[in-house]
Amino acid sequence: MTDDSQRRPIIIDTDPGQDDAVAILLALASPELEVLGITAVAGNVPLPLTEKNARKVCELAGRPDMPVYAGASRPLMRPLVTAEYVHGKTGLDGPELPEPTMPLQDKHAVDFIVETLLEREAGTVTLCPLGPLTNIALALIRAPEIATRIREIVLMGGGFFEGGNTTPAAEFNIYVDPHAAQTVLDAGIPLTMIPLDCTHKALTTAKRLAAIRAIGTPVAEAVAALLGFFERFDETKYGTDGGPLHDPCVIAYLLKPELFSGRHVNVVVETGSELTMGMTVVDWWRVTDRSVNATVIRDVNAEGFFDLVTERLATL
Amino acid sequence: MTDDSQRRPIIIDTDPGQDDAVAILLALASPELEVLGITAVAGNVPLPLTEKNARKVCELAGRPDMPVYAGASRPLMRPLVTAEYVHGKTGLDGPELPEPTMPLQDKHAVDFIVETLLEREAGTVTLCPLGPLTNIALALIRAPEIATRIREIVLMGGGFFEGGNTTPAAEFNIYVDPHAAQTVLDAGIPLTMIPLDCTHKALTTAKRLAAIRAIGTPVAEAVAALLGFFERFDETKYGTDGGPLHDPCVIAYLLKPELFSGRHVNVVVETGSELTMGMTVVDWWRVTDRSVNATVIRDVNAEGFFDLVTERLATL
Amino acid sequence: MTDDSQRRPIIIDTDPGQDDAVAILLALASPELEVLGITAVAGNVPLPLTEKNARKVCELAGRPDMPVYAGASRPLMRPLVTAEYVHGKTGLDGPELPEPTMPLQDKHAVDFIVETLLEREAGTVTLCPLGPLTNIALALIRAPEIATRIREIVLMGGGFFEGGNTTPAAEFNIYVDPHAAQTVLDAGIPLTMIPLDCTHKALTTAKRLAAIRAIGTPVAEAVAALLGFFERFDETKYGTDGGPLHDPCVIAYLLKPELFSGRHVNVVVETGSELTMGMTVVDWWRVTDRSVNATVIRDVNAEGFFDLVTERLATL
Amino acid sequence: MTDDSQRRPIIIDTDPGQDDAVAILLALASPELEVLGITAVAGNVPLPLTEKNARKVCELAGRPDMPVYAGASRPLMRPLVTAEYVHGKTGLDGPELPEPTMPLQDKHAVDFIVETLLEREAGTVTLCPLGPLTNIALALIRAPEIATRIREIVLMGGGFFEGGNTTPAAEFNIYVDPHAAQTVLDAGIPLTMIPLDCTHKALTTAKRLAAIRAIGTPVAEAVAALLGFFERFDETKYGTDGGPLHDPCVIAYLLKPELFSGRHVNVVVETGSELTMGMTVVDWWRVTDRSVNATVIRDVNAEGFFDLVTERLATL
Repeated sequence: MTDDSQRRPIIIDTDPGQDDAVAILLALASPELEVLGITAVAGNVPLPLTEKNARKVCELAGRPDMPVYAGASRPLMRPLVTAEYVHGKTGLDGPELPEPTMPLQDKHAVDFIVETLLEREAGTVTLCPLGPLTNIALALIRAPEIATRIREIVLMGGGFFEGGNTTPAAEFNIYVDPHAAQTVLDAGIPLTMIPLDCTHKALTTAKRLAAIRAIGTPVAEAVAALLGFFERFDETKYGTDGGPLHDPCVIAYLLKPELFSGRHVNVVVETGSELTMGMTVVDWWRVTDRSVNATVIRDVNAEGFFDLVTERLATL
Repeated sequence: MTDDSQRRPIIIDTDPGQDDAVAILLALASPELEVLGITAVAGNVPLPLTEKNARKVCELAGRPDMPVYAGASRPLMRPLVTAEYVHGKTGLDGPELPEPTMPLQDKHAVDFIVETLLEREAGTVTLCPLGPLTNIALALIRAPEIATRIREIVLMGGGFFEGGNTTPAAEFNIYVDPHAAQTVLDAGIPLTMIPLDCTHKALTTAKRLAAIRAIGTPVAEAVAALLGFFERFDETKYGTDGGPLHDPCVIAYLLKPELFSGRHVNVVVETGSELTMGMTVVDWWRVTDRSVNATVIRDVNAEGFFDLVTERLATL
Repeated sequence: MTDDSQRRPIIIDTDPGQDDAVAILLALASPELEVLGITAVAGNVPLPLTEKNARKVCELAGRPDMPVYAGASRPLMRPLVTAEYVHGKTGLDGPELPEPTMPLQDKHAVDFIVETLLEREAGTVTLCPLGPLTNIALALIRAPEIATRIREIVLMGGGFFEGGNTTPAAEFNIYVDPHAAQTVLDAGIPLTMIPLDCTHKALTTAKRLAAIRAIGTPVAEAVAALLGFFERFDETKYGTDGGPLHDPCVIAYLLKPELFSGRHVNVVVETGSELTMGMTVVDWWRVTDRSVNATVIRDVNAEGFFDLVTERLATL
Repeated sequence: MTDDSQRRPIIIDTDPGQDDAVAILLALASPELEVLGITAVAGNVPLPLTEKNARKVCELAGRPDMPVYAGASRPLMRPLVTAEYVHGKTGLDGPELPEPTMPLQDKHAVDFIVETLLEREAGTVTLCPLGPLTNIALALIRAPEIATRIREIVLMGGGFFEGGNTTPAAEFNIYVDPHAAQTVLDAGIPLTMIPLDCTHKALTTAKRLAAIRAIGTPVAEAVAALLGFFERFDETKYGTDGGPLHDPCVIAYLLKPELFSGRHVNVVVETGSELTMGMTVVDWWRVTDRSVNATVIRDVNAEGFFDLVTERLATL
């Protein structure tokens, strides 16, 4: 077991979501990481479901002690768009998970983020947003001084050569709150963006799902049921064997960055046109004079990634 | 003296600013109003100045007991734009006001707004925003349930037939945070907007300024010095006798709505085009099918307004 | 009678429209002007009606020799929007004007404009657009070399402090083809824009209409019938005595510029946002660093203007 | 030799450009096609060069009889952007081609397009735009009735999963005149779009270039020199063996559509935001309710394509 002082402290900001759930489980199963708290945001489903789902997942992992905070129930400017057509009515459709008994924290998620960053040593805490960036943007607007105290933001969101998955141009997390996303990109924080271009190379093929199921633990069974439900939408849409396992890529990147590759480039979010609203315009070929503000991941060693996920889930 | 139970409770959200200062003084001089607190926001000058200026003004009014809260130091999405070219370096250039000794409250302005609205009886508290709408939007994003608890929002901002005063199309308060403004307009709250179309009819003519100066109190002297400085910019730009006394119109509207006239119409803020960014598109002639979401004031009885201001300032 | 060599050569580009009709009559009644041709464009009503209406008006003026050309039947990019709710089904509702017997020219209006400008001495021909700017833009795109050969463009279009008359932000002529309008503004041609801010000060009051009717000629009777119909829409909308007499201002400006006043400023047409599409953003107070590209008229001596119109119509 | 009555009549609208040149040669070498004329437009280089280059290429093909027309020297609305950094100063850098002696036609390209479509049997003539769509849009604006007489438009332009080659979001031909492109897409004409997603799979590898050079004719030598120059830019940018052979795909699609595959989908061009200006938003996964307006090609049998090009060039 890793000594706490060597573990990397992270906050997971999330809107579970089956793939968020697997990301949380992967983090809780990884001794290299110290999950300081989980903050919920409206996204895949409304906030009352995402915060409950976060608690369900913590209990599934045997971690009812994990503090879970509710944050923004709506985007900065636009009406909330949700994705029950992907995640099911509860957001965690698939297995039967019991209602959580662990409490939701009283504190607002944004306050938890701000206070944690101000209390912890500067440059140590990593933020891991897996949903719309509303909470992170609200924290930066409320307390701009936290920007220089964040070690890094590693987020799932966006898409460029892969296009969008919600509109032709926009990926769901960024589309739901494009103004929040641009606010985060503008903050001058070291930022790694894991877009669809990466996650669509990490498919839950039948073989990979079988490997997880073969672990045989209740957690593994639940994960298999979650992913079995989750992959249906993308399998049908794209005709692939399995669906993309988006959010766990964020945690895997923290654990084994060597599985991923990308470029330091400029990213701007479209907020001015409804047609392309929420598109992440990535200057991959560096044809503009806009400054680098993100590391954008384009490739993943999918075998290595699923090996890591499977190996870690087996420890829960 | 009006009994407290009959006074109308208000929160003044402000970025003083000379005209903000006169609005605060007018409110504090008016027994019909119960100022629950003053919340500062970045706007005319940065937040450290606006919150200090708010305290200076409370002390000038003999109200060091008034709770003053600091809120957002930056707009939701865009870099802060300030207006020292109008208000001077301090935001209250003109008189020599002493550094305030009353404290700034620890609580964040947004939390004060949310908590006050949740604690007070629903439908009783009026919000009076005199600057960019960042704090109000942040409160609505953080706690959407407050929307139905607000009695009314009466704000200074926008411009339509008068055009803008910052860009050809946009007025300063809305231009600084157009996304916050649209968020407030979208919230379904009874809302009265007092734009440049009204305030440019309320000019601090030499005669009106002389009437204030003639009160002879230290407060009146300070006000005369504030407005003497403040009017220079608009006098030069527009070639008028005196400048528009924007923000006190909000308080005067609460005291004597009969001095004002306007229409129930639809207002949308432009947030999609840099050319017209922050413009308040007012459907004055009702040529669109967009729903009514605001009362937009176009006219003011300027003599009655200045009589009210002068009469009330004399009581401080 | 003025000698031809002293008359100012103009091309009237028009979408009649009752006020267009009066503008054409005013030009044909004015010996200072040499109308080289009339080019029709789709606008108030579709092209088959505007070109026929132009011919009707020429015949009414006793000028069946005037060459009339048909131009663009649609805007550059956007679907055609027409205004039968203002002008009636024919565009010239009001009097009973006979079907024209004079021919439509075979040549395309855009070719006539280009060829005339290339044949005539450079710097002599003035263009007078009274409708959407599609024909003028098409001429400039087809033959950019004509830009330096145009003496001046004097057009009716736009609105700034007056707002729009089609959407809250946009005037009809510019709204119908905003891309054409911006193309014309970008061409570096001396340009005078007569917007609603001017024309709404030139109302067809009952007294002024009576003065025209009192002329007693068939032309005057027809004009009175045209304007009697035309003013209904604006009288109802604005509650004024009479409606604005838009297009004749262009011809009056050529005849007596001293009746008008305005400023040399920058104008940009909004083409990027549907909300403000077609708005003429006029930098009246010169608050931007954009270059001057137009003389924008804001005021007219309405009495002098109607005296001129009445006096000239009496000669037909 | 194919009998004329069986040949498919086409008009090539082009801004040569090395790849345009090869497309023209491929068409002239193909007995299945009857090239009615070549119309030049400003794009890769200014119009005086593109029309001259078109004539150079006709002479290279031994076809000095081919009518070549000059069209638009500028886009509808935006300033002309050219690409000498790709094509060299002349647009045909690489070989030494003699100055053309064949004449440029007097008629304007737009008039040729309109007249040809009106004269020829409806539904027979195919338009092959290889550059910005200015000429085609101008023809449609001038004579909307041609829309229903066009058999098909097969164009090179756009990019979606491949992104842009001029900005991160926009391909050159569409970026130069996005308003023209949208006008063409809106016209309801059967339209096939060959974007970068297809052409970037048709690379001029060393082996393919050697096969062309091995033909040994002067035409083949010139083509090899053209492509040797042309591929440098993309080889350096993308690190590939060879550059994409864009424009000849249009002609190859007419000859052997079975080499290509794509989908019937909706395409909208972004014209409202500078960030994504000129992007072709392709609803590849049919996630919107926008109507199908184009066949978008995504794949090409590159070997078959280069075999076709090589085989046909050998006949010249």
